[in-house]
This record gives sequence, C-alpha cells and structure tokens, in this order.
Amino acid sequence: MTAVPLFDAASSELPDPIAVVEGLAREFAASAAVRDGRGGTAKHERDRVRASGLLTLVIPQEHGGWGARWSVALTVVRRLARADSALAHLLGFQYLMLATPRLFGSEPQWTRFWRETVRYTWFWGNALNPLDRRTTVVGADGDRRLRGVKTFCSGAVDSDMLIVSAIPEGATRLLVAAIPSDRPGVRMLGDWDAFGQRQTDSGTVELHDVLLREEEILASPGPLGSPFASLRPCLAQLILANIYLGIAEGALSEARHYTLHQSRPWMASGVSRAADDPYVLARYGELWLAIEAARALTDAAGLRLDEAWGVGEPLTPPARGVVAVAVAAAKVSTTRAGLEVTSRMFEVMGAGATAGGARLDRFWRNVRVHTLHDPVDYKVKELGRFALEGIVPEPSFYS
Amino acid sequence: MTAVPLFDAASSELPDPIAVVEGLAREFAASAAVRDGRGGTAKHERDRVRASGLLTLVIPQEHGGWGARWSVALTVVRRLARADSALAHLLGFQYLMLATPRLFGSEPQWTRFWRETVRYTWFWGNALNPLDRRTTVVGADGDRRLRGVKTFCSGAVDSDMLIVSAIPEGATRLLVAAIPSDRPGVRMLGDWDAFGQRQTDSGTVELHDVLLREEEILASPGPLGSPFASLRPCLAQLILANIYLGIAEGALSEARHYTLHQSRPWMASGVSRAADDPYVLARYGELWLAIEAARALTDAAGLRLDEAWGVGEPLTPPARGVVAVAVAAAKVSTTRAGLEVTSRMFEVMGAGATAGGARLDRFWRNVRVHTLHDPVDYKVKELGRFALEGIVPEPSFYS
Amino acid sequence: MTAVPLFDAASSELPDPIAVVEGLAREFAASAAVRDGRGGTAKHERDRVRASGLLTLVIPQEHGGWGARWSVALTVVRRLARADSALAHLLGFQYLMLATPRLFGSEPQWTRFWRETVRYTWFWGNALNPLDRRTTVVGADGDRRLRGVKTFCSGAVDSDMLIVSAIPEGATRLLVAAIPSDRPGVRMLGDWDAFGQRQTDSGTVELHDVLLREEEILASPGPLGSPFASLRPCLAQLILANIYLGIAEGALSEARHYTLHQSRPWMASGVSRAADDPYVLARYGELWLAIEAARALTDAAGLRLDEAWGVGEPLTPPARGVVAVAVAAAKVSTTRAGLEVTSRMFEVMGAGATAGGARLDRFWRNVRVHTLHDPVDYKVKELGRFALEGIVPEPSFYS
Amino acid sequence: MTAVPLFDAASSELPDPIAVVEGLAREFAASAAVRDGRGGTAKHERDRVRASGLLTLVIPQEHGGWGARWSVALTVVRRLARADSALAHLLGFQYLMLATPRLFGSEPQWTRFWRETVRYTWFWGNALNPLDRRTTVVGADGDRRLRGVKTFCSGAVDSDMLIVSAIPEGATRLLVAAIPSDRPGVRMLGDWDAFGQRQTDSGTVELHDVLLREEEILASPGPLGSPFASLRPCLAQLILANIYLGIAEGALSEARHYTLHQSRPWMASGVSRAADDPYVLARYGELWLAIEAARALTDAAGLRLDEAWGVGEPLTPPARGVVAVAVAAAKVSTTRAGLEVTSRMFEVMGAGATAGGARLDRFWRNVRVHTLHDPVDYKVKELGRFALEGIVPEPSFYS
Repeated sequence: MTAVPLFDAASSELPDPIAVVEGLAREFAASAAVRDGRGGTAKHERDRVRASGLLTLVIPQEHGGWGARWSVALTVVRRLARADSALAHLLGFQYLMLATPRLFGSEPQWTRFWRETVRYTWFWGNALNPLDRRTTVVGADGDRRLRGVKTFCSGAVDSDMLIVSAIPEGATRLLVAAIPSDRPGVRMLGDWDAFGQRQTDSGTVELHDVLLREEEILASPGPLGSPFASLRPCLAQLILANIYLGIAEGALSEARHYTLHQSRPWMASGVSRAADDPYVLARYGELWLAIEAARALTDAAGLRLDEAWGVGEPLTPPARGVVAVAVAAAKVSTTRAGLEVTSRMFEVMGAGATAGGARLDRFWRNVRVHTLHDPVDYKVKELGRFALEGIVPEPSFYS
Repeated sequence: MTAVPLFDAASSELPDPIAVVEGLAREFAASAAVRDGRGGTAKHERDRVRASGLLTLVIPQEHGGWGARWSVALTVVRRLARADSALAHLLGFQYLMLATPRLFGSEPQWTRFWRETVRYTWFWGNALNPLDRRTTVVGADGDRRLRGVKTFCSGAVDSDMLIVSAIPEGATRLLVAAIPSDRPGVRMLGDWDAFGQRQTDSGTVELHDVLLREEEILASPGPLGSPFASLRPCLAQLILANIYLGIAEGALSEARHYTLHQSRPWMASGVSRAADDPYVLARYGELWLAIEAARALTDAAGLRLDEAWGVGEPLTPPARGVVAVAVAAAKVSTTRAGLEVTSRMFEVMGAGATAGGARLDRFWRNVRVHTLHDPVDYKVKELGRFALEGIVPEPSFYS
Repeated sequence: MTAVPLFDAASSELPDPIAVVEGLAREFAASAAVRDGRGGTAKHERDRVRASGLLTLVIPQEHGGWGARWSVALTVVRRLARADSALAHLLGFQYLMLATPRLFGSEPQWTRFWRETVRYTWFWGNALNPLDRRTTVVGADGDRRLRGVKTFCSGAVDSDMLIVSAIPEGATRLLVAAIPSDRPGVRMLGDWDAFGQRQTDSGTVELHDVLLREEEILASPGPLGSPFASLRPCLAQLILANIYLGIAEGALSEARHYTLHQSRPWMASGVSRAADDPYVLARYGELWLAIEAARALTDAAGLRLDEAWGVGEPLTPPARGVVAVAVAAAKVSTTRAGLEVTSRMFEVMGAGATAGGARLDRFWRNVRVHTLHDPVDYKVKELGRFALEGIVPEPSFYS
Repeated sequence: MTAVPLFDAASSELPDPIAVVEGLAREFAASAAVRDGRGGTAKHERDRVRASGLLTLVIPQEHGGWGARWSVALTVVRRLARADSALAHLLGFQYLMLATPRLFGSEPQWTRFWRETVRYTWFWGNALNPLDRRTTVVGADGDRRLRGVKTFCSGAVDSDMLIVSAIPEGATRLLVAAIPSDRPGVRMLGDWDAFGQRQTDSGTVELHDVLLREEEILASPGPLGSPFASLRPCLAQLILANIYLGIAEGALSEARHYTLHQSRPWMASGVSRAADDPYVLARYGELWLAIEAARALTDAAGLRLDEAWGVGEPLTPPARGVVAVAVAAAKVSTTRAGLEVTSRMFEVMGAGATAGGARLDRFWRNVRVHTLHDPVDYKVKELGRFALEGIVPEPSFYS
C-alpha cells in the first residue's frame, strides 16, 4: 500500500494539526494491538506520519513549517499516544530533535536543519542518551570521528538524521551534534525488545569512526549552555508526560467502550447493567479524576513552556526553573495516572477483557516501560525542595 | 477597639480585592489559634470584614459593588481561608447569599437586596439547609408565617439578613426567601460547637411565626428553577472547595516555616538540617503536588463558573452540567488534598509541632468538619457517571 | 524427556511436601518466562507435577494420600506460584477438585475418587464455572446427558477427571458431578489465550450429549448444601489468594536480585549502589510490608480453614462465616499486594528490567488476569457489612 | 469517690488481666471525652489503675506479680487504649519501666525494684528521652548528682519511681538509672499541653543536683549493652504500636455505633439506612481491613517478643533483629491504620459526629500526636534494607 498524503502539502493554507493527528490516530488505532505484538519498526506508519506533514509541525512558518506552539505540538503527541504510544514517542522525539539545534546550536545551524527537514521530510532519530558514556570523539578539527555505542536510541532506525552525543577525548562535558543517519559507520542494531513501547526502535546504535563535521556540532551555546538551552530537558520531560497522559486517555476510552458494550453486571450488584454498579461508577470517577488532574497540570506546563520559549536566550534561571517545576508536576501526575488507569481499567471491564487478541495489557506495558525513563522519586524530591525552600531544580538532562 | 476601615469606601477608585483580603488575612492569622480555642462569634473580625468593603465584592458596580467575577471572589475566599477558614466560610457564604436573589428571584429583588447591602453594609447569614425540613410556611398572601427550626445556619448570628428556606403547607418543594435577621420571632440559639470551623456560627435558628412578606420570596424562577438558577449549588460547592484549598495552603505554609526554623534532623538521617532529609523532601513534594493539582482543577472550575454566569438565563442544561462536573472535580480533589496535607504536615515538623498553644491541629479539624458538608463519595460517583456515559449531574442542592 | 519421579512413591515415609514443591519450583523457575511466551498446555511440567506425588497431597493417608492439612497445601500452592503461577493454579485446582466430592458428595463417592486419584495419578480439571449457565442436564435416571458449553475451564486440557456443573432441565440449582475427561462427547477447545496465567488452559469445554452416571452426581448434600459444603468457595478463594501472594513474593525476589546485581544508582542519588538509594529502600520497605501484611492474613485464614474443616458437617453458619471473612481479608490484601508489587517492582530495578527476554512483566500480567476472577469490591463490601453489623457473608460460589 | 479495688489483691488466685482491663476500660470510656478536654493529670484514673493490680502485671509471679507474658501485657495496653489512649500510654510505660532494670541492670536490681513495686504499688514514670541530652551526671562514686532537664517525661507526674537518663561528664554514652520520684531536687513542671494524648503528663522534669546512688544505676549490661538489653526499644515501639491499634479499634467501634444509631442515609443513596449505603459499607470494609492487617502484624510481633524474651541474655543479634523487623512492621501498619481510621471514621458518620461535646476528633488527635514519637519513614527504610539485603536494624533507642 502506498502512503496516501492526508492533505495536499502544497496547499496555501496550513491544515489543522489536531484534525490531522486525529486522522492518523483513527487509522493507527485499529492496528495498534497487532503492531504491539509484532514489535520492530513501524515502517508503514512512519511513512504515514511523514506523509501527514506533522514532521514539520514545530518548524516556524518562515522556514516552511507549520509554526505550531509547543502546547499544540504536545497536544498532537498526546492525541497520537491515545491510539499508539510508540508512534507518539517517535513523533514527540522528532520535535525534541528539531528543538535541539535551536537550543544548543547557532542560527545558521537551526535554519539549515529546519529548512532541509521541510524540503526532504526528514524524520529525526535520537542517539543522545547522556547516561551511556561509551561514545567518544576522537581526532581534531577537520577529522573528528565518533566512536562507540549508544543505547536507548529511540527512532534511530529508518531515520534520516540523528542527534548524537559523545564525549571528546580528555573532556567530560558532552558534545551534541546532528548527523545524517546514513553516514558511513553508523550501524543500527535494531535490537529493541522491551515489553512495552515496542515500536519505538529504542535500541542500540554503533558508531564506527563516523565522520563528524564541524558544522554539525551544536556548540553555541552547547548542551545546557544557557537557561534557554536548558529548556531541552523540560521539553523532553513534557513530551513524556503527554505520552503517559495520552496512554491513560486511550486506556480509559477503551475501558468505557468495553463496560458499556461487553461487561456483564456482577451477580451481587443488584443492577442490570455493569454501568450502573456503584463500585464501577466510583472507579470510573477515580480514574477520570486522576486523568483530569494530570491533564490540568500538563496543560499548564505546556503554556509555561510556550511562554519561556517566547522569551528566548534572555530567559533567566528562575524563569526556567518555574517551567521545570511545572513540568515535574506534570511528569509525576501523568506517571501515576497512567499506571493507575492502565492497571485498574480491567476492574471495570472484567475478566473477559484479558483475552489475548485485544492485547489491552499493552496500555500498562507501554506506560510502565516508558515511565522508567528516569526515576519519578527524584522529580518528587525536586518538587519538595521547591515547596519547602522555593529552590528550583538544577538543570540537567533529566530536570 | 473600633473597627478602622482598611480603605476609604467613598474613594472613586476600587481597591484591589486581593490586596484587601491579604491585609485581613495577615491581621487574622496572628489570632486564629486563639479564636479557634474560643469558638463563638468572631464579632470583632466580622466587623473588620464589614469595614474592608469585601462584603460587596460580587455586587455589580452599577449597583455600588466592586463587580468582581466569581473567580476573583473565590480566590478572595481561598486567601482568607489560609489564615482563618471560619471567617472565609462566612465571607464565602455572604457571596452565596448575594447570588441567591439573582439566581432564584426577580430583577427588582436582586436590585433591591444588592443596593441595600451596599448602603447598609449588610452581612448575610444562612438558614437554608435543605436537608432540615422542619420549617414550614403557614398562612397565605398577606399573612404568611415561617414556623420551625433550621440547623447548620452558618453566619446567622450577628447577621443583618438571612436567606431562609421552608416548605409551604401542602407542598413539597422548598420556598426560599430573604428576611431581616432582626425580624420578630427569629431566634439564633448560638449553639454551634463542632470541633472545627468553630467560628462559623453554624448553629440553630428558630423561627417563631416569623412574618414573611410577598416580596421577600424568591420565586421566579425559584430554587433550582432553571439551569441558570441551578448554578447556585455549583457556586456553593466551589466556595467549599476554595476553603478546603485555602486550609491546605495555609497548613503547608505553617509547616514550611516550622521545618525551616524549628525542626531538628532525625538522627538516622545523616543530614544536618531537617530540610535536607530525603523523606522530608519527598513528603513536601507529595503535599505540594496534591495542592497544586487541586488548585489547577479549582481554578479551572472558577473560570467555567464565570463563563456560565455570563450566559445568564439562556444557560442550557449541558452547559450547566459541564460546570457541575468541573466543580465536582475541584471538590473531590480539594477535600483529599486538605485532609492529606493537614494530617501529614506533622510528619515534616515533628512531635514539637503538637504543642497545645499553637493549635496546629486546627487545620485538620477545620477541613475535617467542613468536608462532611455532603459525602464526597457521591461526587466521585457523579464524576464516574460522566466519565463512563457522558451524563452530567442532575441539579440538586448538592450537585 | 521422560518424567523422572522426584521421589520413590513406594517409599514407606512420606516426603516433605515443602521440599518437594521447592524442587519443582526451582526446576520450573528457569523456564517460566519461555512458557509464558509460548502459552498452551504445559504438558511436560504437568507430568513433572504428576511425578512429584503432589497430586495426592490433600488426600487422607488412609486413602493413600499424603494427608496434608489445607494450610500446608495452600503453602505448597503459594511456593509454586513464586516460580510459575499458572502451574500453581493447576495444582491448587487439583486440590479444590479433590475437595469437591468430600464437600458436595457422599462418603462412597469421595472414597472412590480419592483412591482412584492415588492409584491412577489423576490430574483433575475444572468445568464448573457457575456464571456460565449454558450447560444443561437432559434426560432422567439411567440416561442423563450433559449438553452445552463451559468457559474458564482451568486445567481441563490434559486432565484425567473433570468436575462439571450443569443445570437440570426445569431446575435452577446447579448440579455438580465428576466425570472422566475422556468420556465421549467431551471436547476441549484449547482456546485459552489471556495475556496472563497463560498456561492454565482456562479455555472452553464443549459437552456434546455426554453421559452422566448417577454415581457421578455429587448430590448429598450437593453444591453449597450445608455450611460445611459451603467451605468450597472459601477454599477456592483462598487458593487464589495464595497464588496472588506467591506471585508477589516471586516478583519481589526477582526485583531484589536485579537491584543488587544489575541496577545502577541514579546520578542524583549521591550513592554508589542502587541498594543504598533512600527511595529505593523506601520502596522495598513498602512492597515488603504489603506482602508481609497479606501473608499474615492469608496464613491466618489457612488456619481457620483447617479448624473449620476439622469440624466437618456439624459446622455452623457463623463458624463458616468466620472463615469466609478471614478468606475475604486474605483475598483483598493479596490482590492489592500482588498488583502493587508486580507493577512497582520496576521502579526499584530501572528501565533495563523491561528487556523483552526476561518477560518480567509476566508477574503483573499473571496477577492482573487472575485477580479478575471475581470483583474485589464486593469482597470489601462483605468485609464492611461484617465490620459494621457483624453479619458474615452469605455463602455463594464466590463468597 | 474513693477508689474501690476491682478485686482482692490478697486473693490466692490471679485475676484474668483481660477481664480486669476491660473493667477499667468500660469505666474510663464514659469519661474519656471529658478528660481529653481537661488535660492535666488523671489522678483519679491513675489511682484506679493502681487499685486494679495491673501495675504488677509483667512482674514474675515469684516476685509477687501476675507473671504475664509480653503478648498479654501488650493486649492489655491495647484494650485500654480503645477507651483512653493516654491512660494506656501510662500503663504501657509502666511495663517498659519495669522491663528496664531487667534489661539494663543486674539481678539484685531488678529483684528489688519488682518486689518493691509489688509491695508499694509503685507507678513508674519516664525521664529517659535519649534525644534530649541536657541532663548530665556530675561528681563521682558516693556523691553523684543528676543535673539538667528532660522533656517528654511521660507519666512522671504522680509517679513513685522514675527511670532517668543522663550523660556522665566527659562521656558520650547514656547512663540510665531508677530513682524515687520524690527525691529532693526532682521537679515536675506539669507543662504537657499537646493537642493529643493529653493526660500522659509527657512534660518536663527538672533535675536540680539530684542525688544518684550507685545501686540505682543500671549499668550491667547497661543501656543497649547486649542484644537482649536491646530488646528495650523493641518493647517500647511495640507498646506504641498497640496503643495506635487500640485507638483505631476504639474509633471504629464509636463509628459503628454512630452509623447504626444516628447516621441518616444520604438522599442520593437510594437506601433507607446509612448502614446499607454501598459506599459506607466499602469504607467500613477498608477501615476494618486496615485494622485487621495491622492486628495480625502486631500480634505476630508480640509473639516474637515473647520468644526472644524467653531466650534471655544468650539472645543473638540476628534473633534480636528478627524481633525488630516484626516490631517495625507492626509500628508502620498501626501508624497508618490509626491515622486512616481516625480521620475517615467521620465519613461513615456524617457531619453530626463533629459536635463538640463528643470530642470524637480526639482519636485522630491522640494517634497523630503519638505517632510522631519517631519518624515512620525510617522504620520503612529499615524494612526496606531488610527486604532487599536481609540486614536487620541496628539497635538504637528507636529501632
């Protein structure tokens, strides 16, 4: 099947990104269970995303993109996550990769990368994992080479460009760069096999003396090189939060449908519809409220990110800190809502909902795997420090 | 001591209500513990509220009030609740009583009651408890009389006007009316003695054949007589939610001060300040997050109420229902945050914080008493019905 | 591979059942993940169970069994569940099926079934699901036939005997009987495909005019025909509780091993071993405590069952009720501990523990599927009724 | 009113301590609310305890006591705590003080102190708080003096004997001794005024150069001087756990009575008795289960303490550690059950239960104050260390 564009990219009017993503979500929803079983690369769906135009959503209109604010892009990611959270992760990381030159690099860099993303419909992948410090930069100007291994490289397979990190010989601070995925020496192992988020291709990338050009290095201001540059982890974490939230929303939606159409009332309930069981209703109230609270915090964090992004380089540490706090609140609340909803949803459906074909356990598996990205306890601790002393989180790749 | 006005009421410019309430809150905070111990009527503080001008906050400017939106008035109530939740309850119910003629009555009625409230600085009290059906209306036009007893009459003592409810002989539907508190036959027992919210004077009012004038009856559209009129319980519940939230905020603020200035680190913690204990920080994170989520939901509900109020009589049942859902979410989340924060605050302070003089248990006592107004389980059930079937709550005096 | 007996069944001394089951558990643990992936019938392991002698554990010694008390048999089931909860379910239901003639039938019946179980090493399967009322008994004495379908028939595939239930024409009360699994007309569909407890073969059994002999019907006192007979659901529920508990214990054990040998400390933790992270320790404390509390309640329920069993037919309704209450407490607490431990275990291991090969998510999947057997909310309600009014649960197939 | 003995102490048969404490509990229950309001020393009730004979409960029969095992004594404390947790605290600490010479001192010491306790019906008080290091021992053999201040001296007022701790000049390790309460220089300030446990007299004791005799010093093996001596904190913590549990049990009992006799059904519940409301029943189920689990763990810890006590001085560190773990589990679970039950009990009673006269908030106030004795988070951490690495808690005055 050839990927049919969802809209005419040459149209003079920009499409509504929510409508576009909802179209994709409907399309992907029907096959999500099958893809979860299959794992591997969702090549067809990745091409559908390419065709949708959403890859350029956050690129400013003057550079050919749709110019969406972060709050809109995050909503797009969340909506897609309702149907398929692996694909949502890939799309969210596209946006994170596109933000990286803007935050860590120079204007010529971001201008070039954005324009070429629009021109060539580049799908970006990630090879930045800062906790895996086994990749080094050897050599000097004119003949720098990347050498080593990176794990958790979401979206690297079938990508067009990669954001990589490495440690220059003799240095301790990370270097971050953007390179073509097909550059000689780059090898994707395709070895991702977690029990959740199974089509994020978050496997291993080997870098065998891969050429690194000067102009590919995002060095000004460099990684976390300014308060504004330090918005990157805020964005990264907020993408995660929106994915968790989308998973919870998708799970609740599946549960509702099941309760209304398939669940039978428990014999001791004295009601004729499962939907009238007082405990089923109470559980729905709890699950919905957990989502609603997480949603309110997540939406608020998105707006704060929009504001901080609008400030640009003059962003102060305290102003950046306020964003980090809002993002941490979103992250913690969506983590919990996600785990709660995806585990307890079965209690409002009943044993029949565990039938293998529907693979409804994938919601829990997806959110369980993804919420281990970094420990939520340390987010709570950061919130505690802020609550107690008004001290905002120290910027890092995770805060 | 004579009550000194906090600002010149004749001033051509309206004061900032937040600044005004913060002034009152500072003033009341110092003596809140003493008043909690004393119980009874907070006559001095009631007069300070009268002098502050805040009694007319929600009355439209064309009728001489400050014309604040509901979201502002609710914030004012919340701020006062941080310092003294009993006085916040009285102020919140002032606003609820002022809304009642607008919602249940006719334009001449609300015009008159608002103007006279401005002119005479009326403090309104409550004698409406719909669950206590022992008050009846006897007689007919020209000689109607109220006869019976009402419990839970918050703010009736030292009030100038009362909103009362009663059941006309032979009828089942409540009649609601506004009468002067000093009308012959009205007797306040002053018997409120709960272990929390001790200065709300929520005691008993006896009505001994009290004259009820035709023009005092709020009959058009009457109690819950239209979707718009049915906003009253939404407002009532949202006032409660803001009080619970204010209590939680005030409690956390007290705790922070104590931890930073008085708590000693636990010997097994290995840190030199209680504020650096990882478990203390985790607890602060949890408590703050509970408050922050409740705040987001409560603020959102306030904005929805503003919108619905702006629609007026054309408000449709579904539009009213959306407000009720948002209010229920606020109610449940503030109930839980309030109970959690006020009980666990001691764990981040330590045993010394239980010293009798500080009466820091009053935060829990206040929120515990007040959150029993109506059972939160049924709010959760309503949220569940909405989540599962999209059905909004049926309007009642509690939903 | 031929099944090698774990001990010589002709030995004059009975083996220690705990030692025997621990041997099986060690053997099964290594391959549990693979079996979880494969699903279907665990033929090899079923034969290992047959060879172990444990199939006769609860049969009195005078009839050739090992004569274990229920508390011992439940411990055996729990230990096996640590390693493989599907096989534990099959073994647990063996014991439930063997109890059924004793509870519902006559002495000649239970004597015969027990002796032949010993002689032929019968593995019993279940086709009793009382909620599936599609199987009827047609015909009369001498030519009774079972006709219909039963779902959730755990252990029916590869079984030697089946406990079936059916509704006689014109009746409403269930008839329960024991028939050979290979009787003509019995068809196992082998269609079990839930996402957890994948090798319990809890699929569908079709009964095509299956002959039912008079002496196979357990009619005296019949299903739930006396307080003593009504111990069957207590036993059934307590088997489930022990399986949930075993799953939690097994999960915690896996987590411990991982944390100690594979987890890396979080960079912000300031410790050099994950095992010294204060939040990791706190989580272990919480998970262990949840298990320990559930264990205390489950062990207590086992002892109560032993006592009640010892009373036999004279057992009174209140005495039976006390067992039911203890069992319900065990059921609720193990359900919660199971779900909590198997979901949160990942938080003390980290993202690496989600690697597909280890299939560590199977603990959650197993307990999630199995705990949907009947709704835990109604167990809580029964406990509430008992707590409030001292009224014990009404006997049913689930209480 | 003269204190009438509950039984004839000269009787040749020992009374049943449970029956005796139940008699006291019934007597104290009626006036507990009044005493909670009054605070100060419960002189009359202390004398009733003296008259009951329970002060000698744990003293071996060969020394004239009742010779009860610890598990029995802890049950006695728990039963009294249901009715009046302040008096239960005083009685529990009597037992702790009587254990102190046995654990820290020499046989002549414990023999003397126990015999004189029997002869003179001594009520022991506490002045040991190891966290308050302001009391020193000055001088040397023959003229040692205690000088300083101790806070949290439960039961010191109206006591006959005191266990005191102090730091000898130039030393760091605590010295513990038993002195008469009326020795010159001992001054009880009677300044206890916490908002809970109001009649425990846990105030300040000043020691003005108080003579300390050689034979009063418990130096062999001394404080925590052996694994067996280190059972003291286990006993202390388990007394607390039993008090918390007793408070929870007492609170639930009050709630039941109220729900059954005074609560009205909520109008939206559709039932005619509050006791039939599905959410009320669910809440009772939850509260009861929390208590039941805590009870199982607490009873188990009592039995372990009995065993370890029976071992005596040969007790090994691991065997002592197992007791400490069991006690920690009891402490954490009773803390939580206590806080949960005493706060949520109002939700099954309704707003009427907050009426001031009944002072039903005292259950929460009592458990809230008392559970701050030492931070429960560090108990959970200890359980985590044990769960993860099998390491038992390091003995200290709190572990």
